[in-house]
Amino acid sequence: MGLATVTDRIGALRGEMRKRGIDMYIVPTSDFHESEYVGDYFKARSFLTGFTGSAGTAVITQEEAGLWTDGRYFIQAQKELADSPVKLYRMGEEGVPAVKEYVREKLREGGCLGFDGRAMNARAGEAYAQIAAGKQGSIAADEDLAGVIWEDRPPFPKHPAFLLDEKYAGECTASKLRKVRDKMEEKQADVHILTSLYDIAWLFNIRGGDIAHVPVAMSFAAVTQEESIWFVHPQALTPEVSGYCAENGIKTKGYEEIYEYARDIPAGSKVMLDKATVNFRICSSLRAEIVQEWNPTELWRAVKNDTEIANIRNAHVKDGVAFTKFMYWLKSHIKTEKITEISAAEYLRERRQEQDLFMDLSFDTISAYGANAAMMHYSATKETDALLHPQGFLLVDSGGHYLDGSTDITRTLALGPLSQEQKQHFTLVCRGNLNLAAAKFLYGCRGTNLDILARGPLWSQGIDYKCGTGHGIGYFLNVHEGPNAFRWKHLSASNSDCVLEEGMVTTDEPGIYLEGKYGIRTENELLCKKSEKNEYGQFMEFEIITYAPIDLDAILPQEMTLSERKLLNEYHKMVYGKVSPFLDAEEKEWLKEYTREI
Amino acid sequence: MGLATVTDRIGALRGEMRKRGIDMYIVPTSDFHESEYVGDYFKARSFLTGFTGSAGTAVITQEEAGLWTDGRYFIQAQKELADSPVKLYRMGEEGVPAVKEYVREKLREGGCLGFDGRAMNARAGEAYAQIAAGKQGSIAADEDLAGVIWEDRPPFPKHPAFLLDEKYAGECTASKLRKVRDKMEEKQADVHILTSLYDIAWLFNIRGGDIAHVPVAMSFAAVTQEESIWFVHPQALTPEVSGYCAENGIKTKGYEEIYEYARDIPAGSKVMLDKATVNFRICSSLRAEIVQEWNPTELWRAVKNDTEIANIRNAHVKDGVAFTKFMYWLKSHIKTEKITEISAAEYLRERRQEQDLFMDLSFDTISAYGANAAMMHYSATKETDALLHPQGFLLVDSGGHYLDGSTDITRTLALGPLSQEQKQHFTLVCRGNLNLAAAKFLYGCRGTNLDILARGPLWSQGIDYKCGTGHGIGYFLNVHEGPNAFRWKHLSASNSDCVLEEGMVTTDEPGIYLEGKYGIRTENELLCKKSEKNEYGQFMEFEIITYAPIDLDAILPQEMTLSERKLLNEYHKMVYGKVSPFLDAEEKEWLKEYTREI
Repeated sequence: MGLATVTDRIGALRGEMRKRGIDMYIVPTSDFHESEYVGDYFKARSFLTGFTGSAGTAVITQEEAGLWTDGRYFIQAQKELADSPVKLYRMGEEGVPAVKEYVREKLREGGCLGFDGRAMNARAGEAYAQIAAGKQGSIAADEDLAGVIWEDRPPFPKHPAFLLDEKYAGECTASKLRKVRDKMEEKQADVHILTSLYDIAWLFNIRGGDIAHVPVAMSFAAVTQEESIWFVHPQALTPEVSGYCAENGIKTKGYEEIYEYARDIPAGSKVMLDKATVNFRICSSLRAEIVQEWNPTELWRAVKNDTEIANIRNAHVKDGVAFTKFMYWLKSHIKTEKITEISAAEYLRERRQEQDLFMDLSFDTISAYGANAAMMHYSATKETDALLHPQGFLLVDSGGHYLDGSTDITRTLALGPLSQEQKQHFTLVCRGNLNLAAAKFLYGCRGTNLDILARGPLWSQGIDYKCGTGHGIGYFLNVHEGPNAFRWKHLSASNSDCVLEEGMVTTDEPGIYLEGKYGIRTENELLCKKSEKNEYGQFMEFEIITYAPIDLDAILPQEMTLSERKLLNEYHKMVYGKVSPFLDAEEKEWLKEYTREI
Repeated sequence: MGLATVTDRIGALRGEMRKRGIDMYIVPTSDFHESEYVGDYFKARSFLTGFTGSAGTAVITQEEAGLWTDGRYFIQAQKELADSPVKLYRMGEEGVPAVKEYVREKLREGGCLGFDGRAMNARAGEAYAQIAAGKQGSIAADEDLAGVIWEDRPPFPKHPAFLLDEKYAGECTASKLRKVRDKMEEKQADVHILTSLYDIAWLFNIRGGDIAHVPVAMSFAAVTQEESIWFVHPQALTPEVSGYCAENGIKTKGYEEIYEYARDIPAGSKVMLDKATVNFRICSSLRAEIVQEWNPTELWRAVKNDTEIANIRNAHVKDGVAFTKFMYWLKSHIKTEKITEISAAEYLRERRQEQDLFMDLSFDTISAYGANAAMMHYSATKETDALLHPQGFLLVDSGGHYLDGSTDITRTLALGPLSQEQKQHFTLVCRGNLNLAAAKFLYGCRGTNLDILARGPLWSQGIDYKCGTGHGIGYFLNVHEGPNAFRWKHLSASNSDCVLEEGMVTTDEPGIYLEGKYGIRTENELLCKKSEKNEYGQFMEFEIITYAPIDLDAILPQEMTLSERKLLNEYHKMVYGKVSPFLDAEEKEWLKEYTREI
């Protein structure tokens, strides 16, 4: 009668493993496209372990069950795994083995390592296969064992797709396909297999509804010089979308047909694909030669075109208006009304929904009061929903999808009196945020060159936020996208430390998270632009495109340098200029005060 | 009757090329060990082209002659090549092909590319061989054509070597050899071939006199589990050194015997070596399998041991005393005495020579007045030796080799009135220097993460210094060493962007160079140390170990933040504490003034 507990589920999985002679089974957090957020259908790791965070890997043997996750989720995972048989492995901490190290150590000689080859990218799958081979063992990648035991699994997502007009996308799919084909010619590839849902959506100017808050359609794509094929469930193909595909020479096939298509590519051909995103089963199906390449669409997608940039600026004004109205309401009602984390988020959602071209939230709002905000990716539930008091911090990380762009903004709001330490920490975070945004740098710099501008003020106090400082952001797509990012760690075998190009939009979100106490984060989006060009080279700079007050109630001006205060004053002046025309008199008066010079 | 001009020499080389059917000949700046500075014997590129800078590559065809050098030398190279047939290629500038790109473009189909296989590292040699192969061409790497035409070539250096006592080196050669052998075991290598002169000197605790200001002996080394062999000219082997080698089981062979030794290693063996430093001829001689590894000695050498660190701090106090005495003398005599760039450098040399354990200057002093200092690596000659006037800047970049460590310090001194722009620029450079030195960062950071702390103040004004911010520094060895460095550019295929380890010493030397106007550089050495360790990880910080005033006559305090002023005041307080005990009353009085709080 179902498997009610994590213990039951792991027990059932172990039974299936024994039946098949599988010694160790890996359940990553992945759909078949290496998407960051996955639909409920794909939440096998969460089903198995009870850990609901967006990133993590479970490894199950007959004796042990482990869950690996990163710094953003340590606190949450500890809570969610507290009463389960699953052991938490804190990734990146000293003495904690990486998943691969664990597998290498624990897989017995001649053992069988299992995973669903569709839910694992080819590079990872091959690495695991190599570990197994090194033990004279084998892999079993053809079956989704979690699916076997998961009785009430949610249905596979097959929602209708829709078109993104060129006035929003700024470039037609024919032009984008031409670039792909030029790249294929350069790389002497006959076929390009593309499985990243964001890249497919960008390439075809089509959006979908198959991942909550990520408007993509579950699908694969293949491009040759002659044709382009979209492998997608028929349910996604509305008449409008079908007509558009016909017009643009995009052939459609069933979603599952990609594997057969891959197998049927002639052995002498060359297939350009990125093993870091294409799944293991597709690559295993190929007889043709693989030309390993980052998907070129990833970089093109990250460099916003002029139309997109103009749209994005406009979307941010609307989003800033929504946030400012929310902030005004919260500050003026906190003492008199019963407001909770969830009801605050709901009020903010309503303000966004009133805006022109609003489509959806760009992710589940993080509305985290007090100690809840120390969990970097906390999401309030009915059970945890905290009542807000007129004191301390409320951290709100939220954003909207508009047809003219997506937004991602975090503000930490003082609901009343703060301790001196809270103000000091808020001011440190604000300084880091402003200093990174004010960077001027020679073309060629990467996120790793600049990260310390945001992190330095915190590091100088012996504090760190254990995660990157910022990520690229999609245009009415996934709110997190690469290859641009701000972080200090050099990730090997990743193109995520790319040169910052004109037109890239990256978030700037330093923070401080004190377990059991509070969390602070201030997040703006930065548009990378050309600055002066002189005998030293092409200088670059950022334009802040997020428009909402940084709460002056929490700022200690004397702990900022004069130039930092000037940066904040200039920012607030811009916010007032952009946002105030859309406010009523009372709100405008309030904004004047909250964007005053310090 | 000799080849008096560059035109003659290039003509003669072209003649030799024609005789042998060589279409293109490359002359890098290198001895047979990939040393940075080379003895006169190896200055073939300079002999051929007339460009005397320490870095550059010449490429000669029947039609063209090109010289590639980097930003440090653009101004100097332009001057030195002005009346020659050699065209200057400014490396890294937009539209300027890299040497390899040029070769790829200009080598004819089926052409022959020549170079001296001993003067080219294996990696570069193989890359050129590949370019030639791509054109169905060939390489000719067995002959030194510049040597063929160079009649009055200086003799090959064969100076006596000498021992570095363990009280200076801090670790005996037996212990160092043990580490090498452990590494070989880990990498399953039978032989380790080491050709870096710095690494050999460090490994055997032996120094030599074969490169001006770089106390190394021209030699190769090979290590197996059973023996260690030093390939060195017999002239280097004093009775003391021979006795030491015998005691420590270091077998000696002739310098040239390395090629035969390499050839005779059995084909089934594995040879651990670094193709980026071992020369092409050695690698071509091998029948055994190469295990590519950075020389592990490079990292061990860069991480100074406790004895070395204690010694180095002491050497810096002496060096600071010498510099402070010089600075006092210069400031107090500039109006009344005739002082030139060279005589100033000579006075400074004498002050160093008075210090205990002084062995040599650590490099040719750069004493550059006014516009001369805009040439980053200017070296005054009798012809250029400028008379110093009581106005403007004198840039002095200098250092000493002491048995207890090597130093490298740059100060830019105001000899009299300065323009407002000069003071602004001096203050910017000082801020960059102080900000980098004050960095606190999590363990794992590399130079590329921190570089912007020094460069940021300049970049914010649209200025750059076109080179790295700092380099590692050897212990009574080469004043420039890796793998530690501060720079912003990610160099591929290089280990020069290593994690900053406790015990590494790196220079911090931002600057501003305005062609035809002036040059400013402020250089301190930074010792990397552990700071606090807490829940966020191991924090690291720097200790400034260079002790000499930063000229307050050129500082605009109002253009510094309060915390920057505090950094400068703390630094100056330390300088006074370290240096003043060794000064006479008048000097002490002066130092008090020049280390005052601002």
